[in-house]
Amino acid sequence: MVGALKILKHSELQMSDKLKQLSRYGLTVEVSLNYEDAVEKVREELSKEGFGVLCDIDIKATLKKKIDVDFKKYVILGACNPPLAHRALSEEAQIGLLLPCNVIVYEEGDGAVVSAIDPVVQLGVTGNDELQPLAEEVRGKLSRVLEGVAG
Amino acid sequence: MVGALKILKHSELQMSDKLKQLSRYGLTVEVSLNYEDAVEKVREELSKEGFGVLCDIDIKATLKKKIDVDFKKYVILGACNPPLAHRALSEEAQIGLLLPCNVIVYEEGDGAVVSAIDPVVQLGVTGNDELQPLAEEVRGKLSRVLEGVAG
Repeated sequence: MVGALKILKHSELQMSDKLKQLSRYGLTVEVSLNYEDAVEKVREELSKEGFGVLCDIDIKATLKKKIDVDFKKYVILGACNPPLAHRALSEEAQIGLLLPCNVIVYEEGDGAVVSAIDPVVQLGVTGNDELQPLAEEVRGKLSRVLEGVAG
Repeated sequence: MVGALKILKHSELQMSDKLKQLSRYGLTVEVSLNYEDAVEKVREELSKEGFGVLCDIDIKATLKKKIDVDFKKYVILGACNPPLAHRALSEEAQIGLLLPCNVIVYEEGDGAVVSAIDPVVQLGVTGNDELQPLAEEVRGKLSRVLEGVAG
């Protein structure tokens, strides 16, 4: 529902095949903001939760430039909360393979879809239970980011 | 073994707890190149397999700047092969949450450790079997990158 808060949690996704496809590994909101405003809002809300954006990949521009393909407006923002990243890296050196936390924004009709990686799913591939509390803390932060974006 | 090719595959990791921790979700080589040369070599080998580096996160510099912590030399390179990324995105819009493919390099003794995310593990979190052949193709490419880096 455009404009309404809709954080799709894993347990809720079992109810709908359509939504499951959207978000098995992510937390998603749909917003009535246009794409550009949604990206700006995401950056603001990430900042409130202590995330800097360490990389910013414009998929539409990259695909056009590299392989001359037209694609919808779509950005991948690599978000990093430095104290939490440091904790993760100190626990497991290889964890950089799973950082930063991606937040994607893409146009959908007149609005935009904003999704954040679910850090519990993402860090789950490590099989390292020590990372679970950290993953849950990050999930809490990213959930608040999405709530803020949805307004 | 520094300087020798050592691509650790998932099936081989069951043999050693130590190595398992290194690479359950990654493919790893250790090289005798120093950190800077290893990073340069990784970029060259990625290019040969059609990967551009779309983001480049200097962990040591970021942690120093943001939270005044000293950390080893460590970089996350976000590697993207545009035709393969386009295929993945066309199959599943949310897949940007799991892109690009990270390759990390960090100093270890006089040499460096180079690891690439295992795309089969990474894309496995989607539960979308349609992505399996693509993930295996990317794993083949990243394996060749690491072989090239190890020389």
